[in-house]
Amino acid sequence: MRMLASNLDHFYAVIPAGGVGSRLWPLSRAGRPKFLRDVTGTGRTLLRATWERLVPLTGAERMMVVTGEAHEAEVREQLPELEDHNVVLESEGRDSTAAIGLAAAILERRHPGAVIGSFAADHLISADTRFRRAVREAVRAADEGLIVTIGIQPIMPSTAFGYIRAGEPFEILGAPSARQVDEFVEKPSAATARRYLASGEYLWNAGMFISKASRLLDELAENAPELAAGITEIADAWDTDARAETVARVWPSLEKIAIDYTVAEPAAKKEGLAVIPGFFGWDDVGDFGAVMRVHQAAAACEDDVSVIGDPGRVVATGASGLVVSETDRVVAVAGIKNVVVVDTEDALLVTNRQNAQKVKEIVGLLKESEHPEVL
Amino acid sequence: MRMLASNLDHFYAVIPAGGVGSRLWPLSRAGRPKFLRDVTGTGRTLLRATWERLVPLTGAERMMVVTGEAHEAEVREQLPELEDHNVVLESEGRDSTAAIGLAAAILERRHPGAVIGSFAADHLISADTRFRRAVREAVRAADEGLIVTIGIQPIMPSTAFGYIRAGEPFEILGAPSARQVDEFVEKPSAATARRYLASGEYLWNAGMFISKASRLLDELAENAPELAAGITEIADAWDTDARAETVARVWPSLEKIAIDYTVAEPAAKKEGLAVIPGFFGWDDVGDFGAVMRVHQAAAACEDDVSVIGDPGRVVATGASGLVVSETDRVVAVAGIKNVVVVDTEDALLVTNRQNAQKVKEIVGLLKESEHPEVL
Repeated sequence: MRMLASNLDHFYAVIPAGGVGSRLWPLSRAGRPKFLRDVTGTGRTLLRATWERLVPLTGAERMMVVTGEAHEAEVREQLPELEDHNVVLESEGRDSTAAIGLAAAILERRHPGAVIGSFAADHLISADTRFRRAVREAVRAADEGLIVTIGIQPIMPSTAFGYIRAGEPFEILGAPSARQVDEFVEKPSAATARRYLASGEYLWNAGMFISKASRLLDELAENAPELAAGITEIADAWDTDARAETVARVWPSLEKIAIDYTVAEPAAKKEGLAVIPGFFGWDDVGDFGAVMRVHQAAAACEDDVSVIGDPGRVVATGASGLVVSETDRVVAVAGIKNVVVVDTEDALLVTNRQNAQKVKEIVGLLKESEHPEVL
Repeated sequence: MRMLASNLDHFYAVIPAGGVGSRLWPLSRAGRPKFLRDVTGTGRTLLRATWERLVPLTGAERMMVVTGEAHEAEVREQLPELEDHNVVLESEGRDSTAAIGLAAAILERRHPGAVIGSFAADHLISADTRFRRAVREAVRAADEGLIVTIGIQPIMPSTAFGYIRAGEPFEILGAPSARQVDEFVEKPSAATARRYLASGEYLWNAGMFISKASRLLDELAENAPELAAGITEIADAWDTDARAETVARVWPSLEKIAIDYTVAEPAAKKEGLAVIPGFFGWDDVGDFGAVMRVHQAAAACEDDVSVIGDPGRVVATGASGLVVSETDRVVAVAGIKNVVVVDTEDALLVTNRQNAQKVKEIVGLLKESEHPEVL
C-alpha cells in the first residue's frame, strides 16, 4: 500500500461542488444543493462522502474544492480539514470547463507537473477501495500523458446515463486495464441501452477526469482558446494581490460549457483519451428514482417504503417507494406503489418513480409561481 | 310557504353529531371530527351546513343537537343560536339508537305529540330547497303515524351506500310521493348496484328518520325493551335535578346499536315505514373518494387537482386528484392520477382514490404506532 501511495505524491483531487440538482427538489435546494445533503440516508452529505473517498489518496493538503460563494460556509463546515488556499470560490457558476480548468491552472502554477483528478461532489459510490484502485491506475495512465476517465461497469441498461465505448487496451505498466476511449455516446434509448449492456464494450460516463494539469490545459487551449486565455489570466493572478480584480473582471465573461466538449471528446477523437473500467457501484443520484434505487436494500423500510428520516414517524399500507421525512410530522402512505414523498418544513413533493423526471417541471412551475422562495 | 311552514310547528330537528370519520384522517380527527370540518371547501363545517339546511323548517328553538362532551365547545361555537337546553351531551358514544332515542324521549316529554326528524351532522346535500320539500312531505306522512325516511334518488351505481327498495305508494294527502319501504339492503356489489339503478325502484339509504317521537319510542320499546327502558329512565330525569346521577348510572350501560336495527327495519317489516324520494345531491362524504367527487366541479383546480386550502400554494404537473392544504407549505404533485394529499400541521396522508378505503387501515396502524396522538 505505502509503495503505491507514494506514486500519488503529485496527484491532486479537485471536487467541483456545484449544481442544484433540481430533479431532487425539495430535498435539494438552491440554498442547500444536493452535494450538501445526505440524500443517501447514511448520515453524511454527498460532499463529505466524496472527500472521505478521496482523501486517503491525497491527504487533506492536496484536496481542492471549487464551489459557489454562497456555499462557502457550509462547505467549510462539512470539510474542516480543507485548507484555505484550496477553496476556489466562484461568484457565479460558469460550468465545468471554467471550474476544472481554473483548478488545473492554479495547481499547475503551484505544483508544476501535477496530475489532477476531477470528481463530482454529488455522486454516490459504493466501494471506496475499488474506486481508489481505479484512480491509482488512472493516475498512472495520466503520467503517460493521457487524459483518463473512469467508466463504470454497467449493471443495468440505464437510459439515464451517457456511455463510453471502450476500445483497444493501452498496455501501460501499472495501468493494465486502461483502454482507448473510442466514443462518448449520449443517453441511449432503452433498446440501445440493452444492446450496450449485452456487448460488454460500453461503460457509464461518470464524468471523472484524471490528467496532468498541463495536458488538460493544452487540450483546452487548442479547443477553446478564448476560454483558456481567460482561465490563464485568472490563474496568473490567483495567488497575488490582483486576484479579486481579475476574477471580477474576467470570470463572468467565461464561456459556460461542459468539460466533456472542450477536453474529453476532442481528446478521444485523437486517441488521447483512456478509460479505466470501474467495478464499483456508482450513481449520479440525479432524480428520486435514483434515490429510491440507492435505498432499495436499506434497513429503514416499512411495508416496502424506504425512509430517509425517522421511520417511526412513517406508516404505510399497501404502498412502496420512498419517504423523505425532514419534519416531525407523521407521514402516512396508503396504496400507492413506487411513491415518492418528500416532506420538508416549507415544501412537500408527492410523485412516483415513473414521474421522477417531472420534478424538473415542478421546479419550472415554482419559478413562475407565487412561491419561488421554496426553490 | 307560510301555510306549509305552519304545518311544521310541532316538528323538531335532531342532529346527532358523532362519529370520527376515520376514513377521512387526518382531515377528520377524534378531536375535530368530520362534522366540525369544512370538508367541502365551502367555508362552512358540515355541522353548520346541516343547521342552516334545517333551521328554516324549525327555527333555532326547535333544533336539538346530540354530541359528545368533548365537542360541546366547538358545537356551541359553530351553532351560537342553539339553545342551552337543546344540547344533549353524551359522556361516551352509545350509537344512534341511544342518541336519537334519548332526544325523542326528551322532546316527547317537553312537547307531547312532537314529530322529530333525525339528520346526520356530517352529510352533504346539494339542494337545500328540495331537501326541505322532502322533509315537509315526510313530516306529513309522520303525522299519519308512519315512521318515514328520505331515500336519495341514485345518480350512479354506488357500492358505498345501502339501498332502500321502494314499494307501493301510500297516497297520503300532503305527502304524495310517500311509498312503502319494502326492504333495506346492504351495500351491494357493482353488478347488483347497476341492476338497482336500472330498475328505478331503489333509493340510497341516507339514514334520515322522521317520526312522531311517541311512535319511534313505541317501536323501540317493542324491539329493544331494555334499551328503551334505560332511555326512558334518563329522559324522565333529564329536566330535573336527577339528571347527572341518572345519566352517569344508566347511559354507559345502554346497548350500542344503530337505529336501523331497532326501529327502521322492524317497522319496514310490518309495513309501517314510508320513504320519500329525495331529488337532491347527497353524499355521506365517507372517504376521500367522496371528497374528491364533491370537489370535481370545484373552481379551485389546477391541472385537474382540486384544492381545499390556498390553491396558490399548490403546483401540479401531469397529476389529478385532491390536495387538502392546512399548512402554509408549498405542495407539489407530479404525475400521479387521482392522488389524495392531506397536508396538516402534524400529519400528512398520501394515497389515491382507488385506495381511499385503506385510510381506515392507516388509522389502525397509527393506533398501534409510536404516534397515536395524531389520531
